[in-house]
Amino acid sequence: MTASRSKMQQASISEFFEKNKHFLGFDTLNRSIITAVKESVDNSLDACEEARLLPDINIEIHKIKGEKDRLLMIGQDNGPGIPPDAITKVFGSLLFGSRFHTIRQTRGQQGIGITGVVMYSQLTTGKHTRVISKVAEEATAVYVEIGLDTKKNKAISSKRKRDHWFDSDGNVIEHGVRVEAVMKAKYQRGKQSVHQYLRMTSIVNPHASISLKVFDEEGNIVDEGDWSRVTEVLPRPVQEIRPHPHGQEIGSFQRFLRDAEKRKMTSFLRHNFSGVSMRAAREILDVAGIDEARKPTGINAQEAQLLLNAFKQVKLLAPPTDCLSPIEDLLIKKGLSKAIDSKFVSTVTRTPTVSGGNPFLVEVGLIFGTDIPADSPVEVLRFANRVPLMYQQGGCLLTKSIESVDWKKYGLEHPGGRGVPKGPAAILVHLASTNVQFTSEAKEALSDNEEVLNEFRLALQEVGRGLRNHKRK
Amino acid sequence: MTASRSKMQQASISEFFEKNKHFLGFDTLNRSIITAVKESVDNSLDACEEARLLPDINIEIHKIKGEKDRLLMIGQDNGPGIPPDAITKVFGSLLFGSRFHTIRQTRGQQGIGITGVVMYSQLTTGKHTRVISKVAEEATAVYVEIGLDTKKNKAISSKRKRDHWFDSDGNVIEHGVRVEAVMKAKYQRGKQSVHQYLRMTSIVNPHASISLKVFDEEGNIVDEGDWSRVTEVLPRPVQEIRPHPHGQEIGSFQRFLRDAEKRKMTSFLRHNFSGVSMRAAREILDVAGIDEARKPTGINAQEAQLLLNAFKQVKLLAPPTDCLSPIEDLLIKKGLSKAIDSKFVSTVTRTPTVSGGNPFLVEVGLIFGTDIPADSPVEVLRFANRVPLMYQQGGCLLTKSIESVDWKKYGLEHPGGRGVPKGPAAILVHLASTNVQFTSEAKEALSDNEEVLNEFRLALQEVGRGLRNHKRK
Repeated sequence: MTASRSKMQQASISEFFEKNKHFLGFDTLNRSIITAVKESVDNSLDACEEARLLPDINIEIHKIKGEKDRLLMIGQDNGPGIPPDAITKVFGSLLFGSRFHTIRQTRGQQGIGITGVVMYSQLTTGKHTRVISKVAEEATAVYVEIGLDTKKNKAISSKRKRDHWFDSDGNVIEHGVRVEAVMKAKYQRGKQSVHQYLRMTSIVNPHASISLKVFDEEGNIVDEGDWSRVTEVLPRPVQEIRPHPHGQEIGSFQRFLRDAEKRKMTSFLRHNFSGVSMRAAREILDVAGIDEARKPTGINAQEAQLLLNAFKQVKLLAPPTDCLSPIEDLLIKKGLSKAIDSKFVSTVTRTPTVSGGNPFLVEVGLIFGTDIPADSPVEVLRFANRVPLMYQQGGCLLTKSIESVDWKKYGLEHPGGRGVPKGPAAILVHLASTNVQFTSEAKEALSDNEEVLNEFRLALQEVGRGLRNHKRK
Repeated sequence: MTASRSKMQQASISEFFEKNKHFLGFDTLNRSIITAVKESVDNSLDACEEARLLPDINIEIHKIKGEKDRLLMIGQDNGPGIPPDAITKVFGSLLFGSRFHTIRQTRGQQGIGITGVVMYSQLTTGKHTRVISKVAEEATAVYVEIGLDTKKNKAISSKRKRDHWFDSDGNVIEHGVRVEAVMKAKYQRGKQSVHQYLRMTSIVNPHASISLKVFDEEGNIVDEGDWSRVTEVLPRPVQEIRPHPHGQEIGSFQRFLRDAEKRKMTSFLRHNFSGVSMRAAREILDVAGIDEARKPTGINAQEAQLLLNAFKQVKLLAPPTDCLSPIEDLLIKKGLSKAIDSKFVSTVTRTPTVSGGNPFLVEVGLIFGTDIPADSPVEVLRFANRVPLMYQQGGCLLTKSIESVDWKKYGLEHPGGRGVPKGPAAILVHLASTNVQFTSEAKEALSDNEEVLNEFRLALQEVGRGLRNHKRK
């Protein structure tokens, strides 16, 4: 191991991600603009749902005159707005946010996304990101420009002011957020594009209205899209849940013990974890040989391990599953039919289940189409917590679950039983989970998980049977 | 965007990686022990080379009695040791290290690896990692146990003492490091195993002696390996280089300007960047319309952009390439022949070249074998800066470069010209670079890069021609 005494030093999280911007999805010029749009849209959807507002999201992309590979991305929503004192941190500080420590199904989790956009903009153009935020409770909106001090992982803000905010028709905007970021990027059409990303987003967010306008250097529209909502019903509000004992590692469990505010082990177990009744708490302590009246802060490492072992021996309730928000059959059908012309659509939403203490549920849809080519692999539409996945299809659990089904049985070509089946069809796979395990921070593909794979197989076989029956008719 | 005023908070980099331990390669029980061994071996090799010592590395893995899926990993080297005042930070603080800001070919870069092992050990077992470190300049070794305060990203150390350090024969150990970490993990054999990892490491580090001993609960050896060095010649020392202007983004360039100690722009350009002669510096300033005598700290954003544009118009020298350390033909041959029984070996080390201001070189080897099965895909041995890559083969630039060559021309089966060719052969691909771009922090696969791909294609075609000539004979 190294012995250079001289230059040992601590780098910051911002420096780390600036150096490794491709981990965040800023690797190619085409992908960078998709990533920026994605982060903006994810935040807008999460915020609107939390505030129970039907989302209206407008994305504009402008090619900047006289500059090679430079785009202005504008994202605007009608969400609740960001409280004035949180704006600079939300945009200018990595790992800052409200969701890092909560267990709930949301698109964003880590507090990296939009700050990554500000960072990438600054790195590649030297510019700060302009933000307008208006909350309903205040009379005026906050206008501010935000950059990052990467060495300190702190926001730099400038030109902060307060003013009224009007839309293009001169009406006052009551609440919402607008982000304007310039970046080194390139707009392309095709399978991996902003257009396709928003189209896929609209399929799994049938309650959202999303529009896209792309302008060339002269201000002419060169690409556009408009996906209106097909339902007025917001997804079920997602509840935050306590962690389940089956998901605990000794290290995290010891930290719970250390930070405990409860005075007795019984109440500690009941109030810090889901699925633990009074009877179960007593049984756990009995199995572990620990007195009920002991203080959590006084439990040593060995006793903590005995408790973990006891978690596996005592019957516990499953965690509540109202923290999940499925799209549900009817809306998947509506969403798919909106995007793809079809003869036959079959969908399945499985009941929630649990893996390692984390609730999850899977949904699949199969469209058998008219204008889809018949001799190429079926189109795979992958989603995690209502967010489309567009890269690394091959290495993703969602794709593997499709590949693992014997599609010949159900009337699709499946040469050698390997890979994705062929035919004029599209398959939608959606995982809703409080703990989506991606293979990397760029959130492209899901890691292997036996239990999740099995749920998908069951759901896919069910839509497969539907297809077989349809073809027989 | 979110409006929860209540729970907004800052997470630490340690909390981030604890929650996302799979980003660091701790996803499955089998992989976790490979990752732990890898981090230990990477550090040992880097440190030995820096100190110009021929590395002797011993790895032991012990199954812990009475515990399910729990292993003790011991890694010991004869390296220079870690200075006493740096030990806890190296092992207990993420992003701490000597290499984050330097441009040079090393295995470790970010200061994450071994701290990740300490973190994973603590999370899954509640235990601290034991470290012994001895530097030649001091009379005694430091013994210490290290854990992480993840909230603060700070090391917790205990049981620190000083003592002499002896090997099993009772001889004093003059310098080196020993790491002992307990973790939730499982030892398996096969293609993705510790054994295979060390075998591959020995191929590209022919100057290293590496041994492995794996013990069951009763202390019996159940697996072992011994790869002795085949050369006494250490790899060329790698020099640190200054960044090249062609790799600059405006954001990083502005930071250089702001932090500049030089008083004049000419000396700033010459001393902070490689490839800039006095004449080139003057030409750059002339093209950008900036006076030579200006202070770097006084350059504004617009002027910085003009300078970046000028970098592309003025002829600059390429960056020096002595920062790279190829394995070189003869040693690749020796390494390969040691590991695989072969009839024919052909290797190519290309001359260094530059991509985006970063020097890199590629090396390939092709072995046509005797005891390799003929009807399956060739074995692909992927390496980046002498580190084996064992996961995500499909999504890796190195694999894609192999797939992009028309192998039928050279006498290998290549159905449809797609995928990896078939035949009784193995192909080694090695990228040496000051800036290896991985697709994720788990360092499994390389990101796409046109220039790197082209270099590999040229090298692979050359060994292909060698194979064709051999087969004709």
